[in-house]
Amino acid sequence: MSFNSFGRVFRFTTWGESHGPALGAVVDGCPPGLALSAADIQPWLDRRRPGTSRYTTQRQEPDAVRILSGVFEGRTTGTPISLLIDNVDQRSKDYSEVALAYRPGHADYAYDAKYGFRDYRGGGRSSARETAARVAAGAVARLVIPEVTITAWVAEVGGDPIDPAAFDESQIDANPFFCPDAAAAERWAGAIDRARKAGSSLGAIVECRATGVPAGWGAPLYAKLDSELAAAAMSINAVKGVEIGDGFAAARLTGEQNADPMRPGADGPAFTANHAGGIAGGIATGQPVRLRVAFKPTSSILTPVETVTRDGAATEISTKGRHDPCVGIRGVPVVAAMMALVLADQKLLHRAQCG
Amino acid sequence: MSFNSFGRVFRFTTWGESHGPALGAVVDGCPPGLALSAADIQPWLDRRRPGTSRYTTQRQEPDAVRILSGVFEGRTTGTPISLLIDNVDQRSKDYSEVALAYRPGHADYAYDAKYGFRDYRGGGRSSARETAARVAAGAVARLVIPEVTITAWVAEVGGDPIDPAAFDESQIDANPFFCPDAAAAERWAGAIDRARKAGSSLGAIVECRATGVPAGWGAPLYAKLDSELAAAAMSINAVKGVEIGDGFAAARLTGEQNADPMRPGADGPAFTANHAGGIAGGIATGQPVRLRVAFKPTSSILTPVETVTRDGAATEISTKGRHDPCVGIRGVPVVAAMMALVLADQKLLHRAQCG
Amino acid sequence: MSFNSFGRVFRFTTWGESHGPALGAVVDGCPPGLALSAADIQPWLDRRRPGTSRYTTQRQEPDAVRILSGVFEGRTTGTPISLLIDNVDQRSKDYSEVALAYRPGHADYAYDAKYGFRDYRGGGRSSARETAARVAAGAVARLVIPEVTITAWVAEVGGDPIDPAAFDESQIDANPFFCPDAAAAERWAGAIDRARKAGSSLGAIVECRATGVPAGWGAPLYAKLDSELAAAAMSINAVKGVEIGDGFAAARLTGEQNADPMRPGADGPAFTANHAGGIAGGIATGQPVRLRVAFKPTSSILTPVETVTRDGAATEISTKGRHDPCVGIRGVPVVAAMMALVLADQKLLHRAQCG
Amino acid sequence: MSFNSFGRVFRFTTWGESHGPALGAVVDGCPPGLALSAADIQPWLDRRRPGTSRYTTQRQEPDAVRILSGVFEGRTTGTPISLLIDNVDQRSKDYSEVALAYRPGHADYAYDAKYGFRDYRGGGRSSARETAARVAAGAVARLVIPEVTITAWVAEVGGDPIDPAAFDESQIDANPFFCPDAAAAERWAGAIDRARKAGSSLGAIVECRATGVPAGWGAPLYAKLDSELAAAAMSINAVKGVEIGDGFAAARLTGEQNADPMRPGADGPAFTANHAGGIAGGIATGQPVRLRVAFKPTSSILTPVETVTRDGAATEISTKGRHDPCVGIRGVPVVAAMMALVLADQKLLHRAQCG
Repeated sequence: MSFNSFGRVFRFTTWGESHGPALGAVVDGCPPGLALSAADIQPWLDRRRPGTSRYTTQRQEPDAVRILSGVFEGRTTGTPISLLIDNVDQRSKDYSEVALAYRPGHADYAYDAKYGFRDYRGGGRSSARETAARVAAGAVARLVIPEVTITAWVAEVGGDPIDPAAFDESQIDANPFFCPDAAAAERWAGAIDRARKAGSSLGAIVECRATGVPAGWGAPLYAKLDSELAAAAMSINAVKGVEIGDGFAAARLTGEQNADPMRPGADGPAFTANHAGGIAGGIATGQPVRLRVAFKPTSSILTPVETVTRDGAATEISTKGRHDPCVGIRGVPVVAAMMALVLADQKLLHRAQCG
Repeated sequence: MSFNSFGRVFRFTTWGESHGPALGAVVDGCPPGLALSAADIQPWLDRRRPGTSRYTTQRQEPDAVRILSGVFEGRTTGTPISLLIDNVDQRSKDYSEVALAYRPGHADYAYDAKYGFRDYRGGGRSSARETAARVAAGAVARLVIPEVTITAWVAEVGGDPIDPAAFDESQIDANPFFCPDAAAAERWAGAIDRARKAGSSLGAIVECRATGVPAGWGAPLYAKLDSELAAAAMSINAVKGVEIGDGFAAARLTGEQNADPMRPGADGPAFTANHAGGIAGGIATGQPVRLRVAFKPTSSILTPVETVTRDGAATEISTKGRHDPCVGIRGVPVVAAMMALVLADQKLLHRAQCG
Repeated sequence: MSFNSFGRVFRFTTWGESHGPALGAVVDGCPPGLALSAADIQPWLDRRRPGTSRYTTQRQEPDAVRILSGVFEGRTTGTPISLLIDNVDQRSKDYSEVALAYRPGHADYAYDAKYGFRDYRGGGRSSARETAARVAAGAVARLVIPEVTITAWVAEVGGDPIDPAAFDESQIDANPFFCPDAAAAERWAGAIDRARKAGSSLGAIVECRATGVPAGWGAPLYAKLDSELAAAAMSINAVKGVEIGDGFAAARLTGEQNADPMRPGADGPAFTANHAGGIAGGIATGQPVRLRVAFKPTSSILTPVETVTRDGAATEISTKGRHDPCVGIRGVPVVAAMMALVLADQKLLHRAQCG
Repeated sequence: MSFNSFGRVFRFTTWGESHGPALGAVVDGCPPGLALSAADIQPWLDRRRPGTSRYTTQRQEPDAVRILSGVFEGRTTGTPISLLIDNVDQRSKDYSEVALAYRPGHADYAYDAKYGFRDYRGGGRSSARETAARVAAGAVARLVIPEVTITAWVAEVGGDPIDPAAFDESQIDANPFFCPDAAAAERWAGAIDRARKAGSSLGAIVECRATGVPAGWGAPLYAKLDSELAAAAMSINAVKGVEIGDGFAAARLTGEQNADPMRPGADGPAFTANHAGGIAGGIATGQPVRLRVAFKPTSSILTPVETVTRDGAATEISTKGRHDPCVGIRGVPVVAAMMALVLADQKLLHRAQCG
């Protein structure tokens, strides 16, 4: 019920601002006895880490995670796991402009309208820096669902999609864009460079696939697996759209085209299509779960945009700070983490009710 | 936390199956003192009611709602409001085929996989009949947010969109498709007729707009207004995609194109665009909230589809029962109800924290 | 999180007022496949039913329960179970006095202060009539925990306790007081008769014991088994005190006296005492869970008491309506139901986290 | 819903073990704009701090709190407030005995039964050290309810109660027992010294009073103010009983004796008694809220007690480590903190629903 927690039985709470001393997550409800150390978490944080290529923000954060509770002699104890990441590179720049004027596309005005004032340093709580805490929590979630394999990648940048025929999973970690299509990765490098130099930014579409999800996970009606995934994805900074399976394209199919026929299989039905993205009635069917997420272009751009000050005066603003020219790229490990977090929770929920 | 409840402070729980004696909703957390009678709810149910045109299922349900608690002398008391709708036309057809074989696209197999067995009569709990309870609860939610006006319509059927230039709000209730474009409505009539005669079905896209939402509603981070809307929409039967504002199209814009500039306004900033759909950082900006929802084509089709029996034998199935050829159409009042339910909850949440 | 729901995974929501058309409960999260019919619930309701002896209110309610959802072919489906009980004997008496003046000890003034007005007929939502819905839900909970045996009784009426040495479980259902001590039952009959004739009322203490609770149930820290039981018991009308194990008496023991030593046992430790009431650190130890609950004397008395009107004028009021002279007696099935509801939830929570 | 969180809108989550590097709380839902610094929290922690007299454990912990998030320029921002307290004096003693054998009265066996193993160092998560995090969170809660004054004290030690006639609030902080009766404090000093020297321990009863709670706070039915207080109190280590108002004594009164008559007052009814402890129907009446809590004697005693090893062998154990001879004393600031936390939450809940 709290605002900064997610999940029902496997549940995490995040805290921290972009320019505070640290940020973190408390993971509650984790089953006991799982082997866990910082080394299980760090690789996932490293994937999300800023400053690793010229295509991401130049803020340098080691994002080294510490486990402060919930682990004893290398195993989870069943008690809350507190994860802490220090903020190291909160550059003490001059924030007077951001403090006074609202950056369009950012939460500046909305936070002021809601809370009466805001921590304007780097966006405060509304900064995508918070997603580091999700990624850390997601690494714990992965340990809860060893039967599941989660793969995420960028499927489109600035309207330029990958060629599905060229999909090569081994490429995903071979370029700075989590791009499974080597040719697309090259094109994107150019496009992002151009956007950055033009003081502009690009949007992206991220895809995520979870295989090995057993048929039966999912909790209808208001904790449906797809409903939870939609909430999880839409809670990520800059996300404006979510699709399960064929998503909006399904609305253009006929009933026959969209059917996922079944044939006898070794272990339950063998589906011959997966338009549904592995979920029917909010419950996993055993097929791969397919999630697609739209990220808007980074709102922080050098190009000046018209805006108003806190006092209501007309002005314009350009964001000179460090930022990602295409925020969707670093969204990949975040989307994957949210998939893991939702699935871990659904596994425990299923076990609770159905034994 | 329960599976069949939604909302945090303004919270509703639904119950009931397609072919049980009744279905209903319990609305909890409603503010006291609001004028409420069945007459406030019935018109919304009537909009969702089946059997009203040849473009929807021929099941005849009056969907007459009774208020069993929570109202005294015509006003809400602050205690739970129990809403009950009798099922009247549960046709006692032969369900043996559905009992034995899994209908592709339906939750049949998933429910069996999860629960070990299922109420196969009309889909049981997974039937869209449950959405009547949401519409009833949504009617109560509307009373909580008199400052907000919610409008919903069908924007596309079978890949054929309305012409935005022809948008005429007064048309929405003038045709059986909630279509704001008279010409499109005519085309859809033909398309749906053809689909029905061919034993097929069509998908649809529903749009919903809420105006009058005050800047500040929304509860970051994991109860963000857009995250809640995404969960709410994706929990509706047959929904496969959700967009806020420009949604997936935003991923193809540049940062400048996607910016929503602000100019000095009478009461806070005056935005000169609304790509964001009225939400920034999960908080309402005061602009219209824009939600777009993709419905897959109805899975119940006459055209036979390959499937398997509960025992794993190959067979094929065609759904001869009464059904909507385009389930998205009756999704319009459901999407609008979920919008009202989310906004009512967010209003109370905002009041709780921010006074 | 909602106000009228209780439980986390096995969760119920109640609704209804004393003089509305009906009241009910929605039980969510029940495991599938359990045999359930109204006949499983009715006997528990019959134990709580008013009008069965001259020691309880003379309101005549059959309290016949109907199951409206969640059961198919005699078994729970895993979907919400809606239970409905009609109100039959809402005597259309004159409520003008209660409408205008606040009955001391009742929630009249508090409801007005909170909600601005109230349903004054029979106490509205604050009536103990609501506990019928709990008893119905509790009957479902019992099916979830067949390994547990719950026994509840009245241990004291009007300051007159049973003789522990005379405890005879078979007596509990042999008198109208759920009294396990035949001699005490006789004394109580006299005392209650005298109180009734004097226009007065008596308090009572109810005890409840659950055997067969496996070591390990309980969810530290804020869903501890004892914490949940305390919340559950204190939520019952007229309850003012809760004890686990020795309760307040433990505060007068020394550490040695209060220790529950362990000896080797066939299946885990064999405890040689149970001061703790079967719970340590919020987790069941495998010993009997012991709960003790104090009920105040019924606030509805014929003896006039000073009070004020809604307008603030001095007056006095005496409650002439039908009421229980000792409300704690009918609290016995309610306390037992809450024990079952908490344990069912804790069983599922334990299964969720610990497999 | 999570195990280590408490509250509904104003909600906190605690984490940390007795001998881990740190412990903490995340406070979520706090209203924005409240002045908050570590100096607002530290005095409350200092009251609970161990090692301050010979009547408490000799563990030396500065319990210095750091605020890691949620505050900007000295004011709360409405985002989660992360509070961190380092563990400093985790003495590296030999825990082999505790690791192998179960201490009676402790959660050792229960944790093993639940989780399969446990962090045995100082009780791990089941240690009362966790209550430091509650006290820190409670200090934030106090800022949310400036209209309320909370006072807590020890009312009885080892069966020796204070003399109500000698109650002197100014004495509470004048002795190491939070004792409002100077003569009782002297007697307790002797009794506790004797118990300590005898390798024994004593129980205690703590009372807490909240004045200034407005009529109307409280959320029936399952978030009743008294139900929440009971859950809150029973979640504290070593607590075995809870009373509201007259508690168990009310069960021995007649209806007339227990009535709280009302007379016309300046601002609502003026009650002439407060048997109910300021709560009717789960809602505050405006009178002082009165809570009474029973603490068992400390389970850690030098006197050997029979027990079993993890392997089921008979042994006996005596706890030689540092411990409080009367754990109830340091329970005083914890009970007061829980009162503040419940009331802050109820204030926001009331505001949510009733405006």
